[in-house]
Amino acid sequence: MTTRPLRRHVTPLRWQEVDVLAYKEEGGAPFRAVSRQVLFDDAALACQLRYFEVGPGGHTTLERHEHAHAVVIQHGAGRCLVGAAVYRVQPYDLVHIPPRTWHQFRADDGQPLGFLCMVNAQRDRPQLPDAADLARLRAEPGVAAFLDGETPS
Amino acid sequence: MTTRPLRRHVTPLRWQEVDVLAYKEEGGAPFRAVSRQVLFDDAALACQLRYFEVGPGGHTTLERHEHAHAVVIQHGAGRCLVGAAVYRVQPYDLVHIPPRTWHQFRADDGQPLGFLCMVNAQRDRPQLPDAADLARLRAEPGVAAFLDGETPS
Repeated sequence: MTTRPLRRHVTPLRWQEVDVLAYKEEGGAPFRAVSRQVLFDDAALACQLRYFEVGPGGHTTLERHEHAHAVVIQHGAGRCLVGAAVYRVQPYDLVHIPPRTWHQFRADDGQPLGFLCMVNAQRDRPQLPDAADLARLRAEPGVAAFLDGETPS
Repeated sequence: MTTRPLRRHVTPLRWQEVDVLAYKEEGGAPFRAVSRQVLFDDAALACQLRYFEVGPGGHTTLERHEHAHAVVIQHGAGRCLVGAAVYRVQPYDLVHIPPRTWHQFRADDGQPLGFLCMVNAQRDRPQLPDAADLARLRAEPGVAAFLDGETPS
């Protein structure tokens, strides 16, 4: 695919010639109310840049993998889990997901949460937590509350 | 350098633990009123993500190289040259600079122009135009006006 030099931002966080896609295939990993837009996917670039939007109350998949993520929040607010810690995020905050680190984004602030995510074009498939992984994550009360979708106080 | 999971956006387009750097070494390629912030530079990521801000009336270097750029405008307005065409840009517009393509960003709209730029971590050095290159570029009146810093009508 040839990318045109300019693709305009047309309606909030939607662009010319950029399709709004399902976040993942249905029936696989658990997620809720997430869309995906691939902004840049070019053979000359070693990374892709995607825009994800999580609707109010929604969340991305809790997963980990060998590849890293570089995230720039663009819209709305929410929280994210990185490893064993939960962080509130708002526009322009920078989130770094290192390799082999459990992570999840939640739009748990009554508004959507939209973010850019840079990722290596060549990457491994995500791994989902098993029961033992979940038990270890939930040992931290703040993480358990996050995973249960409890609205932060 | 270890990147912390969360680095907050503190003042407009400035971040915790992110230095505001000179755009390039002084005395080399021509530019004006540009700052550079490296938001993500991680061994596990094949690209870097930088934030550039061009002050009102300023411009980046007119250059080309083998590597590509993926740009997301974040702040202000201005114009950019990509190849032989000039484009007005505003927040969230997407600009793709293909390999071997002359390009320049100008904050020529009386306001700053700030943008994210994704680029391969491993990349060649930029090439500056010689007199023949400039003559070819300036053959297009709109490009000549852009390079002369003329405010668009």
